[in-house]
Amino acid sequence: MTITDRLVDLALTEPDDIPERARAVMGLSLIDWMGCAIAGRHEPVAQVVRRLATDEGGAPQAHLAGGGQAPARMAALVNGTVSHALDYDDTHFAHIGHPSVAVVPCALAMAERVGADGAAFQDAALIGAELSVRVGLWLGRGHYQLGFHQTATAGAFGAAAAAGRLMGFNASKMAAVMGLVATRASGLKAQFGTMGKPFNAGIAASNGVEAALLVANGLVPNPSALEDFGATHSGSNIKDAVNHIDSDWVFSDVSHKYHACCHGLHAALEAFGAVEDPHLNVARIAVHTHPRWLSVCNQPDPDTGLGCKFSYRAVLAMAMAGHDTSRLETFSDGLATEPALVGMRDRVEVIGDEQVSETGTRLVLQMNDGSERQVEHDLLTPLPFETRRAKIMAKASALMGEERAARVARHVEEQADPSGLARELAG
Amino acid sequence: MTITDRLVDLALTEPDDIPERARAVMGLSLIDWMGCAIAGRHEPVAQVVRRLATDEGGAPQAHLAGGGQAPARMAALVNGTVSHALDYDDTHFAHIGHPSVAVVPCALAMAERVGADGAAFQDAALIGAELSVRVGLWLGRGHYQLGFHQTATAGAFGAAAAAGRLMGFNASKMAAVMGLVATRASGLKAQFGTMGKPFNAGIAASNGVEAALLVANGLVPNPSALEDFGATHSGSNIKDAVNHIDSDWVFSDVSHKYHACCHGLHAALEAFGAVEDPHLNVARIAVHTHPRWLSVCNQPDPDTGLGCKFSYRAVLAMAMAGHDTSRLETFSDGLATEPALVGMRDRVEVIGDEQVSETGTRLVLQMNDGSERQVEHDLLTPLPFETRRAKIMAKASALMGEERAARVARHVEEQADPSGLARELAG
Repeated sequence: MTITDRLVDLALTEPDDIPERARAVMGLSLIDWMGCAIAGRHEPVAQVVRRLATDEGGAPQAHLAGGGQAPARMAALVNGTVSHALDYDDTHFAHIGHPSVAVVPCALAMAERVGADGAAFQDAALIGAELSVRVGLWLGRGHYQLGFHQTATAGAFGAAAAAGRLMGFNASKMAAVMGLVATRASGLKAQFGTMGKPFNAGIAASNGVEAALLVANGLVPNPSALEDFGATHSGSNIKDAVNHIDSDWVFSDVSHKYHACCHGLHAALEAFGAVEDPHLNVARIAVHTHPRWLSVCNQPDPDTGLGCKFSYRAVLAMAMAGHDTSRLETFSDGLATEPALVGMRDRVEVIGDEQVSETGTRLVLQMNDGSERQVEHDLLTPLPFETRRAKIMAKASALMGEERAARVARHVEEQADPSGLARELAG
Repeated sequence: MTITDRLVDLALTEPDDIPERARAVMGLSLIDWMGCAIAGRHEPVAQVVRRLATDEGGAPQAHLAGGGQAPARMAALVNGTVSHALDYDDTHFAHIGHPSVAVVPCALAMAERVGADGAAFQDAALIGAELSVRVGLWLGRGHYQLGFHQTATAGAFGAAAAAGRLMGFNASKMAAVMGLVATRASGLKAQFGTMGKPFNAGIAASNGVEAALLVANGLVPNPSALEDFGATHSGSNIKDAVNHIDSDWVFSDVSHKYHACCHGLHAALEAFGAVEDPHLNVARIAVHTHPRWLSVCNQPDPDTGLGCKFSYRAVLAMAMAGHDTSRLETFSDGLATEPALVGMRDRVEVIGDEQVSETGTRLVLQMNDGSERQVEHDLLTPLPFETRRAKIMAKASALMGEERAARVARHVEEQADPSGLARELAG
């Protein structure tokens, strides 16, 4: 069996063979994705892509985050970009990418276009995300280090699989979709730190819609082109990395961000979150983190809200002072320069430590009573489902208001008609 | 100066600094491109992309080959695909790609959209094509051998430059366009022999429109991402290949196809074309061609019109019998199986010969009078401009009728309003 055959099998998994746990985790990601898309709708890059949609116009096939409708291909472009604009969406560390922002906008736009029911939509989103993660694993770290952005490249395959599933494709059409999207999948890491990064998610989602519609319209590509994509884009021979394609379900390992800042800071914030009344009890914090993060998110004295998103000292000072780091508003320029908070940063010291994993952080706390405590957290440590759900609901409420978050959660958990979710997105 | 800086300088070349010879050759390519697009409009892949355009609808910003209008981004997608459907368009051997099908559809759609005059349109098309060839040279043979399709990848940069020029961008916006399209440029050689190949031209053209419109709408990408594109897509270190970017004007070396078959057969047909009354005089032909072509276009006994397009024996038998190999209709299943013609194939022998260049062919002819003659042709040998023009007009007349070809040529050579050309395309 070729890689394509294996992916086609995965894409066409029967509903009865889909693990319930994976479905439940996709439910969390859908709620989380809605919050990110709704909160991101006023970001500058969101305005840019919405302007393109307005300029082109066209058939109102699917809703746009922030209002209006557009052809499905455009809706996927807009909603993929908008939902990644805040960089607050889910991450799969093994995939090295953000599965939902590439796959969900495609699945939602196609579900609206074909009138799919809630179960078909959610299964398509889940299977697309699962497939994108396995393609990401197959392409591997070499792909990422070469300069490609898995979110966009592997993401396009996942989006295309979701779209093909919603079109009711058989194995031969699904292979054609994989082959066609192989010639279209793109996205460079060079866009990190610019509007090009969220746009990469939008192009993945849009590529998925486009490939499925063209195959439905009769385009016959090379159905094996995906095999060549591996060779052209991996920087190494990955023909043997088939085990990643045949792996057990991996999507459920997805991580959600519970803090509106760089993912490199999250383990420290989670570890600190376990300390009771920290503003009363903690005198000083030594942050032990993997040295790779020191060049990523260790700005010592940021003076903007954006800068604080990349600063151990700033976010731990905020947490000590009781500010809610899940809220976007916390990362304001005002708070970044508040003298009391700026002063508290001096109680935080950051230490590169090879003994700590890349996804973990160890905090050594000097307490006000003179004692020392150590707390640690690893983002890969599984949390109980209910804990994850509670954290996601708190975040979703912060991003889109409590009532709307509750409506969205009910909608997702009852697998209601996806057009209702689409209207929430636009409304 | 970076690669991007150099390309931006090229993209913003003042009209007075553009060589007249390059302009004249672009004029030929425009006439040739129109013929390919008009003749390609009924091909199956043309129907497929037109169906997507109809399905999406939208603002009538630019005309579609075969009729109707669509947003400029979609018009570029359709017209790029349609004009490459027959694989009869121009080729630049150093670029290793087809410059016009990626760049011209983008330039024409944007010219319509912004209401550019004929001179601005043609300069944008020329400079976009020139830029795409230089990017193709920079990416080099390694890029192609790795599995990328320069037409699509390098082509997207050329299309984007043409679009940016028509938008009146300054250097900083032009750099942004180059940086943005770097995250979108894609296309695999794996699609050769399928509808995915012409689609690759369409995506290049469409990517150019999209990048320019998004930058105009305010998208701020990494303006240096093109530098990373070289690293991710070349398979080797090409940082030093700057000389290709700074080269003299290279577009004028473009080759036009004068026969509706594989480019590997063209030198043989051109050499044979110099023989007077061949059907009366030639008894046998020995074709000396570079061995690389033996696996490409040496089908010994094809029984379909398509097969004949990849057969030395078939096309030389056709030429001996006086059939016009510039006409698409010549490559019919009927002619492929006509007994007299099939019999004549046995008078043609094909010999792989390392002494012959990849772009050349030597024919050893046994004449009916018992004498032997040798004729040869190399596609890289420059032809006088008027000879090129006459051949292109004959081809254009075969593809779109004599009157229409004359109207198109007048339109191009008088640099008339590009919307007139666009209407010819649609009409």
